Amino acid sequence: MHISELDTPALLVDLDVMERNLQRVADYARSHQLRLRPHTKTHKIPALGRRQLDSGAVGLTVAKVGEAEVMLGAEPPDMLVAYPVIGRQKLERLMEVARRTEMTVALDSFEAASQLSSAAQAAGLKINVLAEMDVGMGRVGVRPGPELLELGRAIDSLAPLRLRGIAFYPGHIRGNDDGARQALAELSATVRGAVEDFRRAGLATHVVSGGSTPTLFHSHEIEGLNEIRPGTYIFNDRNTVACGACERRDCAVTILVTVVSTSRRNGLIIDGGSKTFSSDLLLPAGERTFGEILEAPRARFFQMNEEHGYVDLADSGASFRVGDRLRVLPNHVCVAMNLHEVVYGIRGEHVKQIWRVEGRGKLQ
Amino acid sequence: MHISELDTPALLVDLDVMERNLQRVADYARSHQLRLRPHTKTHKIPALGRRQLDSGAVGLTVAKVGEAEVMLGAEPPDMLVAYPVIGRQKLERLMEVARRTEMTVALDSFEAASQLSSAAQAAGLKINVLAEMDVGMGRVGVRPGPELLELGRAIDSLAPLRLRGIAFYPGHIRGNDDGARQALAELSATVRGAVEDFRRAGLATHVVSGGSTPTLFHSHEIEGLNEIRPGTYIFNDRNTVACGACERRDCAVTILVTVVSTSRRNGLIIDGGSKTFSSDLLLPAGERTFGEILEAPRARFFQMNEEHGYVDLADSGASFRVGDRLRVLPNHVCVAMNLHEVVYGIRGEHVKQIWRVEGRGKLQ
Repeated sequence: MHISELDTPALLVDLDVMERNLQRVADYARSHQLRLRPHTKTHKIPALGRRQLDSGAVGLTVAKVGEAEVMLGAEPPDMLVAYPVIGRQKLERLMEVARRTEMTVALDSFEAASQLSSAAQAAGLKINVLAEMDVGMGRVGVRPGPELLELGRAIDSLAPLRLRGIAFYPGHIRGNDDGARQALAELSATVRGAVEDFRRAGLATHVVSGGSTPTLFHSHEIEGLNEIRPGTYIFNDRNTVACGACERRDCAVTILVTVVSTSRRNGLIIDGGSKTFSSDLLLPAGERTFGEILEAPRARFFQMNEEHGYVDLADSGASFRVGDRLRVLPNHVCVAMNLHEVVYGIRGEHVKQIWRVEGRGKLQ
Repeated sequence: MHISELDTPALLVDLDVMERNLQRVADYARSHQLRLRPHTKTHKIPALGRRQLDSGAVGLTVAKVGEAEVMLGAEPPDMLVAYPVIGRQKLERLMEVARRTEMTVALDSFEAASQLSSAAQAAGLKINVLAEMDVGMGRVGVRPGPELLELGRAIDSLAPLRLRGIAFYPGHIRGNDDGARQALAELSATVRGAVEDFRRAGLATHVVSGGSTPTLFHSHEIEGLNEIRPGTYIFNDRNTVACGACERRDCAVTILVTVVSTSRRNGLIIDGGSKTFSSDLLLPAGERTFGEILEAPRARFFQMNEEHGYVDLADSGASFRVGDRLRVLPNHVCVAMNLHEVVYGIRGEHVKQIWRVEGRGKLQ
């Protein structure tokens, strides 16, 4: 099927680019003896989780128990829930997943560890745990030093939990400038210190799991790190380009849209807005644009409502008619994927795969 | 079932508030002889479309053909697609819907009218059409005056289309200040002029359809307007409160979340982010907050990632523990609804209804 036969809006995945991205990161991880455990929140498709495993990943990462349930379809040897699992219902479901594959949870509180321990005990299962450390993002994670050690010891004392090591997410480090290089050097010192603390205390450091897509190719510079969890790298997006972690040609996902109105002077309206792209802005927030239009790179996609995208053509040198189709590179591919029921894998202009986004909307 | 038995995040609809909202707007429309045709993009649930019809709506509005297909479940006497329907596949599906209920389309180009005419002819159906006029929002719609007349005449000449009148959307008018009052007066003059133009040209003005939730209770001040299409009014949200179209107590939807981390100093992380609330900011963009926390109104929900909400408690006088549950009033309820597979109708703290969001993700 040619992409012209698809109705719009439709999310297209360029398979050649995606496969190159998978290979590049698998090669990088292998060459630096880093275990690769991709975060599947970006694609939410078991078949793609399987592809990641087949190309060298040791296991998969998910954000929610609902995503773990879906990702069992990829038949992973093990999974990491990189999110504290809180509450009876989620823990019961997590135990069901843990009957089918080895599970690890990253968490940052005694309360979360205690709830997980009780659930594992009731289910007669052993669950691996990583102590989550905050390396400067200020999201989840306890501070390195006494707090992290205290958390590690608490987990270690809670049978049937098995403390396996440390997790962190350096989501605050973006770019390749002096500031980012300095932040990476600090991160490396922090991780080294935390690993030494754990070793001195006799706590496990089998797994030291970190890394984001923006810091991906600097992972080998972080001393002690032995596992990376990039997500976006499979597709990349405008944000990944903006932070210098990939080139424009490494972006695999575009959204095919139709021009539905040209009444606006020097502009047009496309049939995709915040329910198609999400309203995520380009990072770092400088320019207020919601996507790059391949057929008119100098056009400005400057505003959205739910089903309308506003494009300013004034400086673009381009003009279009109602019914014309455009392809738009999104700012943030993870949230865009989450809005589509099905997505299309293409080679050139031909549709080769149709995937249901099975993990879409698994909020719990 | 008590809401404490729900897993989180969960979108809760307070049925008492929703019913009051439905009744208030039905009464308003009736008392001003305005036909009420609610936009169902806010809730996307056929059962709620039915409730709107039962409480006085004359028909329903949708944004997409996929939503029209879903909303057939409400058994509406007729439906308006308030969006140009472009392209063979959508038009074929629209004709299937039009075999089951009377359909009207609002459009703003000869191309859209011509495509619709061909599809209707091929299907042997008559389709009603409204000429879409831009009243200042700069989205879809042609300018009032010669352009609108030309569009009206073109539609009128295209059998089997039936020109029924004019549509517009005053989405740029928000608030109750002098500027908004001035804009409403201008809008009224524009609508009156357009209706007079159409009458003089012998074009139909049976339907003059406009109105948004922000301008809802000013609709009777717009001369010539005889049909309104508010959407958000069924639930309301922080944006509706901010523009003065409702009070805080008229907001029916809250999102139930769980505190998953308190490691952050003076803050906490909740288990809902941009995949639960959407990343829509509060309008008009002054304050960067993503929701109001009922249990701590002075807390600031100031940042999100996909599954993490960052809350600053510094000035809140409140403190919470991991596992505590909070209810959050969202900025923009329409996009939040679109992210949830099911939502819960509650009375007090008891779940009385469980609805699947059937029109969710119907992008085409």
